[in-house]
Amino acid sequence: MDNNSQEKLEQVEQKYNVRTDLAIEAREMVGEEDIEIKGVEVIVDNIKDIELSITKVNILDEHGSKALNKPIGSYVTMECDLMKQNAPEAHEEIVRELAKQLGELAKVDKDMTVLVVGLGNRDVTPDSLGPRAVSNVLVTRHLFQEFGEPEGDDGFNKVSAIIPGVMGQTGMETFEIIQGIVDKIKPSLVIAIDALASRRTTRVNSTIQIADTGVHPGSGVGNRRQGLTEESLGVPVIAIGVPTVVDAATIVNDTMEELLIEMKKQAKENAEVADMINSFNEQEKYQLIKEVLYPYIGNLFVTPKEIDAVIKRLSNIIASSLNIMLQPNLEFDEITKFLS
Amino acid sequence: MDNNSQEKLEQVEQKYNVRTDLAIEAREMVGEEDIEIKGVEVIVDNIKDIELSITKVNILDEHGSKALNKPIGSYVTMECDLMKQNAPEAHEEIVRELAKQLGELAKVDKDMTVLVVGLGNRDVTPDSLGPRAVSNVLVTRHLFQEFGEPEGDDGFNKVSAIIPGVMGQTGMETFEIIQGIVDKIKPSLVIAIDALASRRTTRVNSTIQIADTGVHPGSGVGNRRQGLTEESLGVPVIAIGVPTVVDAATIVNDTMEELLIEMKKQAKENAEVADMINSFNEQEKYQLIKEVLYPYIGNLFVTPKEIDAVIKRLSNIIASSLNIMLQPNLEFDEITKFLS
Amino acid sequence: MDNNSQEKLEQVEQKYNVRTDLAIEAREMVGEEDIEIKGVEVIVDNIKDIELSITKVNILDEHGSKALNKPIGSYVTMECDLMKQNAPEAHEEIVRELAKQLGELAKVDKDMTVLVVGLGNRDVTPDSLGPRAVSNVLVTRHLFQEFGEPEGDDGFNKVSAIIPGVMGQTGMETFEIIQGIVDKIKPSLVIAIDALASRRTTRVNSTIQIADTGVHPGSGVGNRRQGLTEESLGVPVIAIGVPTVVDAATIVNDTMEELLIEMKKQAKENAEVADMINSFNEQEKYQLIKEVLYPYIGNLFVTPKEIDAVIKRLSNIIASSLNIMLQPNLEFDEITKFLS
Amino acid sequence: MDNNSQEKLEQVEQKYNVRTDLAIEAREMVGEEDIEIKGVEVIVDNIKDIELSITKVNILDEHGSKALNKPIGSYVTMECDLMKQNAPEAHEEIVRELAKQLGELAKVDKDMTVLVVGLGNRDVTPDSLGPRAVSNVLVTRHLFQEFGEPEGDDGFNKVSAIIPGVMGQTGMETFEIIQGIVDKIKPSLVIAIDALASRRTTRVNSTIQIADTGVHPGSGVGNRRQGLTEESLGVPVIAIGVPTVVDAATIVNDTMEELLIEMKKQAKENAEVADMINSFNEQEKYQLIKEVLYPYIGNLFVTPKEIDAVIKRLSNIIASSLNIMLQPNLEFDEITKFLS
Repeated sequence: MDNNSQEKLEQVEQKYNVRTDLAIEAREMVGEEDIEIKGVEVIVDNIKDIELSITKVNILDEHGSKALNKPIGSYVTMECDLMKQNAPEAHEEIVRELAKQLGELAKVDKDMTVLVVGLGNRDVTPDSLGPRAVSNVLVTRHLFQEFGEPEGDDGFNKVSAIIPGVMGQTGMETFEIIQGIVDKIKPSLVIAIDALASRRTTRVNSTIQIADTGVHPGSGVGNRRQGLTEESLGVPVIAIGVPTVVDAATIVNDTMEELLIEMKKQAKENAEVADMINSFNEQEKYQLIKEVLYPYIGNLFVTPKEIDAVIKRLSNIIASSLNIMLQPNLEFDEITKFLS
Repeated sequence: MDNNSQEKLEQVEQKYNVRTDLAIEAREMVGEEDIEIKGVEVIVDNIKDIELSITKVNILDEHGSKALNKPIGSYVTMECDLMKQNAPEAHEEIVRELAKQLGELAKVDKDMTVLVVGLGNRDVTPDSLGPRAVSNVLVTRHLFQEFGEPEGDDGFNKVSAIIPGVMGQTGMETFEIIQGIVDKIKPSLVIAIDALASRRTTRVNSTIQIADTGVHPGSGVGNRRQGLTEESLGVPVIAIGVPTVVDAATIVNDTMEELLIEMKKQAKENAEVADMINSFNEQEKYQLIKEVLYPYIGNLFVTPKEIDAVIKRLSNIIASSLNIMLQPNLEFDEITKFLS
Repeated sequence: MDNNSQEKLEQVEQKYNVRTDLAIEAREMVGEEDIEIKGVEVIVDNIKDIELSITKVNILDEHGSKALNKPIGSYVTMECDLMKQNAPEAHEEIVRELAKQLGELAKVDKDMTVLVVGLGNRDVTPDSLGPRAVSNVLVTRHLFQEFGEPEGDDGFNKVSAIIPGVMGQTGMETFEIIQGIVDKIKPSLVIAIDALASRRTTRVNSTIQIADTGVHPGSGVGNRRQGLTEESLGVPVIAIGVPTVVDAATIVNDTMEELLIEMKKQAKENAEVADMINSFNEQEKYQLIKEVLYPYIGNLFVTPKEIDAVIKRLSNIIASSLNIMLQPNLEFDEITKFLS
Repeated sequence: MDNNSQEKLEQVEQKYNVRTDLAIEAREMVGEEDIEIKGVEVIVDNIKDIELSITKVNILDEHGSKALNKPIGSYVTMECDLMKQNAPEAHEEIVRELAKQLGELAKVDKDMTVLVVGLGNRDVTPDSLGPRAVSNVLVTRHLFQEFGEPEGDDGFNKVSAIIPGVMGQTGMETFEIIQGIVDKIKPSLVIAIDALASRRTTRVNSTIQIADTGVHPGSGVGNRRQGLTEESLGVPVIAIGVPTVVDAATIVNDTMEELLIEMKKQAKENAEVADMINSFNEQEKYQLIKEVLYPYIGNLFVTPKEIDAVIKRLSNIIASSLNIMLQPNLEFDEITKFLS
């Protein structure tokens, strides 16, 4: 096995063990909901009319971080099945709630310079969430440079935006591009939007996660190798992510798990069968995954067929929330004056 | 269970039984390669330097049609792993071979009017093969109307092309659109290009199937409900298809099959275990598939991450082959004169 | 001069004489606003807060038709400089007004089948208005076929949509494609959206014209040669057009006119100069246009640099108006139920 | 007149005086071809079979720089009418010649790190040349980082690429983005591809200019305000430009010039008329331009209707030339091995 395959094997193994981009899933994987984990705080809220649930997972210390395999910080997950549907009224409510949650997490004040980053590949539909959202974000930084600071008490945020592309298109790590730009324009905040992988098809396209911990290596549909974090960039990084795919290895692994569980149930009084099932080890499972997914092992994703319409809706929700959060002092008609 | 779910269940059941868009897979599913099937003729050829295999499956009569669950006709499958890779020299060879095979199947003469149809959704990357290929096909029909018939002995084909969109975009069956256009412009041949589903990830993006039997209901990534066939359109229909996805239900089903086979092997001397495995019926398997894929059952596909670059390559291969086949009497510089 | 050039010359001559896609401009070219033209009725209205003017030109008989070089029928022109700007609140008002005007002109009832056609080339920004608008129109016809007629008193319209492409892409006249589809699905109304040419840069991207007379040969950025009219299609055709370009020959011609007028003013007491200016004939002017625009004579357009953002706004305005007009009995949350 | 209008007036004045992005046009504007200009060297070559002319303008010193209003350096202009046409065989010859000229100008060696920059707005067809060309450039830098340096004598260039977007999309000057990335990845060469404005429609889409002087403020369809030069970036910058538009103010101005010249000819024996024409000053001309182009003064361009197909051809020519120049030691099948 060459190095490349070895690396891919490791990726797969990570994946079908505890790898998930969502803190809420990491929490679920650790154990039952009602058992407390040291260093992890979970607060759940609901908006009933649109069945929107908001789960805040605060990872408070190293212990919590280890337990959930996620950095210390706050993770807010909004779940609502109407997100992915053609439901303009529900979307308006989601937009306002997301803007509120983002505001609390990002601590956006006036007079900030913000760089919004659309991660992912605009040419692969489920990975195009970030680029599409960014193309609808109101950019204003150049207007200040052109027309000067606006007068009066009201503050304004200077918003800039970039769609860096993916490594296969640029030959550069996304991290290199963003760090170069951050060093040059010195924003006070970076907001990165990305398509994520989920463990469960139920969450696909109906979940938005925001976090104040940035984007970490191996996140996203495209598997970045270096993160965008306050540590690496020198400025706070808010990550906005939506799971738009499930890794194919996850689906395959879950299928086996479910099948084995089902068989155990049926075999409950037959010790021999149970033994055999239990003896079925990880290496054998991995061999099976490899056979089913060959030659694309580690490189296949599962996505719904109507993904184009859904990505359009989700990117509009995210862009609108950012516009509301970042331009709080402007009425719409004032915004107009600034734009050509 | 409501009607919609029932319908989807049926779709899934069709799928994880014998449903495949590829005649070569239908053939494989029926039995070992060396056992002859009545009414089915299989001819295999190879081009060694690029490891391109060409399999012609001729379904000769009703018996063969029933055995393979495909209409009577000729199906040519070209398989080559270099198709999906950045391999310009291999692509040139594939293009020439595909043009040759298409010419034999389509019996293209000079002075024909041909309508090329790009099926699928241009906004969903793995389904955009047809639209992208069509956008590179040389259309010439309008030039004849503008400048008149060219003089001399050489014949020319009048090529027109359409990208009809999918039902969710148009509110119409693709069949309705194409039949309307065919009735109006009366081509002597329709060529339809489509992204297909395969049973095996090995075939994804490395297989081109051409057939003289048209496009059938339920084919394609997007599951059309009515076919484009000589019977329905009144003119011969050549279908060009590339499997760009695997249905997620297929992957999940295959995983279970592999797992059960593996367990049987391990349990070979334990009759009880073997019995239990054998007793695991289709309904139980389907329940498991449903649990793993819920709520997207029947509506998820599996696709590789680099799909954008691959679709570009494949659509260029197909468009080039069509251009060579359809404009045989023109040198490139003559083509130029006709185009603005 | 070969045939092609001759044809182009004629196109240009048409253009820089009285050719305009806008009835309001045709009216202006005939004479002063306050002089009545037999067979032409003009009604002007204003919505003050957003400085939106609405001009209805009714061509009542053959005399009016000849005078304005337009078919008998109603033409409503909405002009508002905020259309092209980033002005969401003004856009909402424009959308509601346009929906109202469209409703009156189209006499849309419930239970109609409507085919919306997006004319133009999606790959040329100023010509992509129609395709982009159509991609945001709510299509519903297939839902009726899938789920049956909805119960209750409320009627619903069955909306289908098509983006046919342009002749250089399809080898077919747009008319041929649309007529084929109309014959097949038999809509009770066709609505065609198109990018137009204006005579004046002031009107570019700030004017919407709707008419009940359909689309006529030579209209649009791309110069179609056959129209889409009730006469040719057998069903009423509503045309929605926005001037997004000015023909370069028009700009050049207007420049000369302005220069000659200016010179006449300066030369007012010098009969000789005035004579010389007056003696400057059409053929000489056309020679100059040819020299300035060579080799693209008849084939160049003038468009503003920020055209991409503007086309996005205008196509959203048109799509929203159509959605409001075509689905009047549905609340947004009811629409949702019908869509996947 | 507010500041903004003043600025635009200045832009226009610059434009309709001596502003051109092409050195060959700057040379023409200075005087007759056969009169030598101090500090300027002009070498002309031809490739007869495809009527390709190659003009090298070397600006040798300050005197030459002032005379042509261009920085000291080498400018190579390739002109060929077949560029914009569907002429694959001519394109192959153009590609090879362009690769040769680029190689000489860029002094590309092996083992270089090159950053290719696609300037312009991908959503405005005539400005999308840079982005489209870059999307077809072979990027390899990441492969070296993944797989290590290749063995053997042959050197390889490490190519990276970026499509930075335009200021209205990013809120940042292109210069800021590129300087940030250059500081971070430290390439030994930057190659910037851009759509330019020409003074003459004859040159539109049939001219490629390459220069070793970088990209200068005010160049390009979109009017950048800061340049990309060796001075500003600290590494050599090769600029590749194609005029894809003519500024509308230029067309209008040229029309007046031609008209005035024509009138002078006709009035040759009438001193009074000649006097009046001569007295027609720049301010009056500018007023006329303003009237014809209002309200878009300084912000309109002229472009041919078939621009989408032409941009596709031109971007493919440029990308292919770069791939040949930057990967000289690789056979195509070796390239393949490095790419996934």
